[in-house]
Amino acid sequence: MSKVLSIFDTTLRDGTQGEGISLSADDKLKIARKLDQLGVHYIEGGIPGSNNKDIEFFRRVQELRLQAKVTAFGSTRRKNSEAHLDANLNRIIESGVQAATLVGKSWDFHVHTALQTTLEENLAMIADSIAFLKQRGLEVIFDAEHFFDGYKHNKDYALAVMKSAAAAGADWLVMCDTNGGSMPGEVHSIVTDVRSQLGAAQLGIHTHNDCELAVANALSAVQAGATQIQGTINGYGERCGNANLCSVIPNLQLKLGYEVLPAEQIGQLTNTARYISEIANVHLPNNQPYVGTSAFAHKGGIHVSAILRDSKTYEHIQPELVGNKQRILVSELAGQSNVVSKAKEMGIDFDPANDQTKEVIQHIKDLEHQGYSFEGADASLEMLLRSANGDIEEKFVFESFKMLVEKTAGKPVVSEAFVKLNVGGSSVYTAAEGNGPVNALDNALRKALVTYFPRLKEMHLSDYKVRVLDEKDATAAKVRVLIESKDLSSSWNTVGVSENVIEASWEALVDSIRYALIGETFKETDLGAEEQNHGLVNH
Amino acid sequence: MSKVLSIFDTTLRDGTQGEGISLSADDKLKIARKLDQLGVHYIEGGIPGSNNKDIEFFRRVQELRLQAKVTAFGSTRRKNSEAHLDANLNRIIESGVQAATLVGKSWDFHVHTALQTTLEENLAMIADSIAFLKQRGLEVIFDAEHFFDGYKHNKDYALAVMKSAAAAGADWLVMCDTNGGSMPGEVHSIVTDVRSQLGAAQLGIHTHNDCELAVANALSAVQAGATQIQGTINGYGERCGNANLCSVIPNLQLKLGYEVLPAEQIGQLTNTARYISEIANVHLPNNQPYVGTSAFAHKGGIHVSAILRDSKTYEHIQPELVGNKQRILVSELAGQSNVVSKAKEMGIDFDPANDQTKEVIQHIKDLEHQGYSFEGADASLEMLLRSANGDIEEKFVFESFKMLVEKTAGKPVVSEAFVKLNVGGSSVYTAAEGNGPVNALDNALRKALVTYFPRLKEMHLSDYKVRVLDEKDATAAKVRVLIESKDLSSSWNTVGVSENVIEASWEALVDSIRYALIGETFKETDLGAEEQNHGLVNH
Repeated sequence: MSKVLSIFDTTLRDGTQGEGISLSADDKLKIARKLDQLGVHYIEGGIPGSNNKDIEFFRRVQELRLQAKVTAFGSTRRKNSEAHLDANLNRIIESGVQAATLVGKSWDFHVHTALQTTLEENLAMIADSIAFLKQRGLEVIFDAEHFFDGYKHNKDYALAVMKSAAAAGADWLVMCDTNGGSMPGEVHSIVTDVRSQLGAAQLGIHTHNDCELAVANALSAVQAGATQIQGTINGYGERCGNANLCSVIPNLQLKLGYEVLPAEQIGQLTNTARYISEIANVHLPNNQPYVGTSAFAHKGGIHVSAILRDSKTYEHIQPELVGNKQRILVSELAGQSNVVSKAKEMGIDFDPANDQTKEVIQHIKDLEHQGYSFEGADASLEMLLRSANGDIEEKFVFESFKMLVEKTAGKPVVSEAFVKLNVGGSSVYTAAEGNGPVNALDNALRKALVTYFPRLKEMHLSDYKVRVLDEKDATAAKVRVLIESKDLSSSWNTVGVSENVIEASWEALVDSIRYALIGETFKETDLGAEEQNHGLVNH
Repeated sequence: MSKVLSIFDTTLRDGTQGEGISLSADDKLKIARKLDQLGVHYIEGGIPGSNNKDIEFFRRVQELRLQAKVTAFGSTRRKNSEAHLDANLNRIIESGVQAATLVGKSWDFHVHTALQTTLEENLAMIADSIAFLKQRGLEVIFDAEHFFDGYKHNKDYALAVMKSAAAAGADWLVMCDTNGGSMPGEVHSIVTDVRSQLGAAQLGIHTHNDCELAVANALSAVQAGATQIQGTINGYGERCGNANLCSVIPNLQLKLGYEVLPAEQIGQLTNTARYISEIANVHLPNNQPYVGTSAFAHKGGIHVSAILRDSKTYEHIQPELVGNKQRILVSELAGQSNVVSKAKEMGIDFDPANDQTKEVIQHIKDLEHQGYSFEGADASLEMLLRSANGDIEEKFVFESFKMLVEKTAGKPVVSEAFVKLNVGGSSVYTAAEGNGPVNALDNALRKALVTYFPRLKEMHLSDYKVRVLDEKDATAAKVRVLIESKDLSSSWNTVGVSENVIEASWEALVDSIRYALIGETFKETDLGAEEQNHGLVNH
């Protein structure tokens, strides 16, 4: 059995059928280029027969001169009609692709219920459509829809469909577990049987994750002889998604010894997963296998000491193989080794033996006991460590804030904040509105500082999380706020804790700004000088 | 091979090692009760040897009289020491559990690198610790850490570990794929071999999801003879998580014909998954298999017509079997029946055919679109339905509130709220302080009403949750607040949504009081009469 496999990426077609995913033609082109850099063999771009954005994509993708084969998707011809008259098939040809994917019914139940036609007509639809595209010089990938259900209910018909497709010249016969309900054992035996019956044909597998087995089923099929795997980056797709190529590829190549992508390109996997999630505007789950930010994150103190001694103790592969990296989380289970190694990451040298280090560690533990969590707040931790190390020069001094929320029946709620700071010796007092208390405080705080530190113009808040700790105390409980801030090139996270959600948010906001100002110098401005003289309220 | 399986839930122990999950003892008790209702066989509660929250949990869980066996987790005794002197082991016994899970090393590499001891001493640590707990009458589950890596590197030693544990009296021998790096095929052959070598022992499997194969590996092991599966609800756990019981259980029972949970209880799966995600304050992914809101959501028009003709066309199981439901993202059909049946539960009769019902349903859908979720907020939903049915008599009218938070450097933060209502024709204006904005509002609101409605003295807020929706909008994002209120005999939940966390909290607070006042009559008081005359600010 060949160990050389083809990756067929359908992120841009099946992936877009997932809830919450919608890609423009530009998005698709960006993703296509990225997929090509990764080294996938086929990129299914969309459905020219039913989508104008896709027609534009197929036209413009030709300029990219991708190495991968771009394919267009469509159904077999309509029943009781002729292939050369079929609009969808013709649009596939007009799109200019080298290869096409045709989906056809292989479950008799569907032929009767969904298509409402005869079993013979369905076979003809498949054969005619494939033959038509082959005559036009296209490579044809035949997707046998609901293949496993079809085989389980009427094996002879399902096999007849495959043979029909093969006879008509299909280059690939792909078995689709469209409902996502198959088990790995049966996938293996069915693919084994198909392989024995279909001889020389190249077989492919297309799975769905409705039983959390899309990846396992894909592996199963490959082990039974399939050599093409259809899936999506990050498992995007309808319902529970398609087979996640970010798990399929490393499993096949790094674990099972298949040849999938060139060795240097598999290291692009994490970067590819993140890039595509950004374009798709979907949060990449931290805990996603191989490529998630927590895939190699270690929390418990015992684990961490072992890891620092030898990564193999708790890591199944070297993260760098897929372009990821190890993270040591400083958490309530934190031990000394976590903190010291985190400081090292930041370029701060703490000697584990000396008293200053012990104090810092105790301080962190006390804060954690009060509800602080530095797991998602690296910048706050860094501020803490640098302060302890004497590295921080405070750029402003907090004097006071007032925050007011007013609601009158029938009118929108109003939030206002008033912030007083001392910057370089002068008192600065600002007022701002916002769409909520934290937004108002953020606006007032920035107003107070941006004339002195123009760098602050480039940063903005990009994420805000609130967590009530120990909810048993209900409204008297402590609240932990996590803030993510971004500028053009980086992002950083800060934390604040208090019984008062406003105070907790303020703390996290101030930390995010202090962090942004590390290394910044105070900018003298005429405006600044005036304020120094008049102590005017900034507009 | 037996087809009867045991589910060992470690949500409260291994699950809490996942990033972003932190449970109080109260949270754990709520989850334990829910797990017990689902019907799992073992509930691993935590680590009494290293966590005070867990000691409290083990003490209080006894009052719940769960059907499931509650187990405590710990390591084998320290090297070169004695079991009866080991603090962790003694804490397990003191915790009062019926069963204990002991984790021991089964990979020689770990014995040398992590434990830094000899292979023989490790065997003694395992045997001694198990024997000690067995003598004290506990059921003992032995977790062989890194078993599959251990077996692959030094098969003889890994088997020796298992035999040692069995000889010492372990009731269960659990093979753990601690690094999460194993493939289903090798899991199957290794478990097959272990079973042939260990004869009568009961075997268990504990997998991790680092290759997106935790579920597949668990199934593989069961098919090779394991009869206990360790996992977590929603797959919570370190790095990429543990085996997701919400996928493992239906796969085993509904697909592979094993006996796992009583038939009527497997229908609780979706409800359990959602409840636990709420308590853990972690978003349940829409696309999670079986239990996610999109697991049976159909988007495309073609799919939808086929589905409406026969669900089997695109659904691998009937969603109701796991307590989920079909969603048609195009039509309203699914929504309507759900609301009508919920109303019936509350004793309100809505005729699905008439216009009033359609309006109510549309209103609920609009609210849900804005971010309201009535899943954890039955009282708000009931208020909505009763209002629509004309059943509610408003006891007070909201006029306005002001909420002020002030912080001066070096002084504690101050929160004050001022609430103006109209009660029975008179204006009531109160002022109150609080330890945070929501607490201050709650105090002011109650002050305004308690003299008229003394019943309010008996109620208090018992739980408060905040969730930021669509975090991509950072501080402009909507916030959803859920409040639980209690009195002597019952508890109820209400919800509020707004971009402004204060307004959202206010909304949920007001709803909780309106709900408490259903059926209450306004109490005339002398104080009330005076206020009618003078409109004084209440103290």
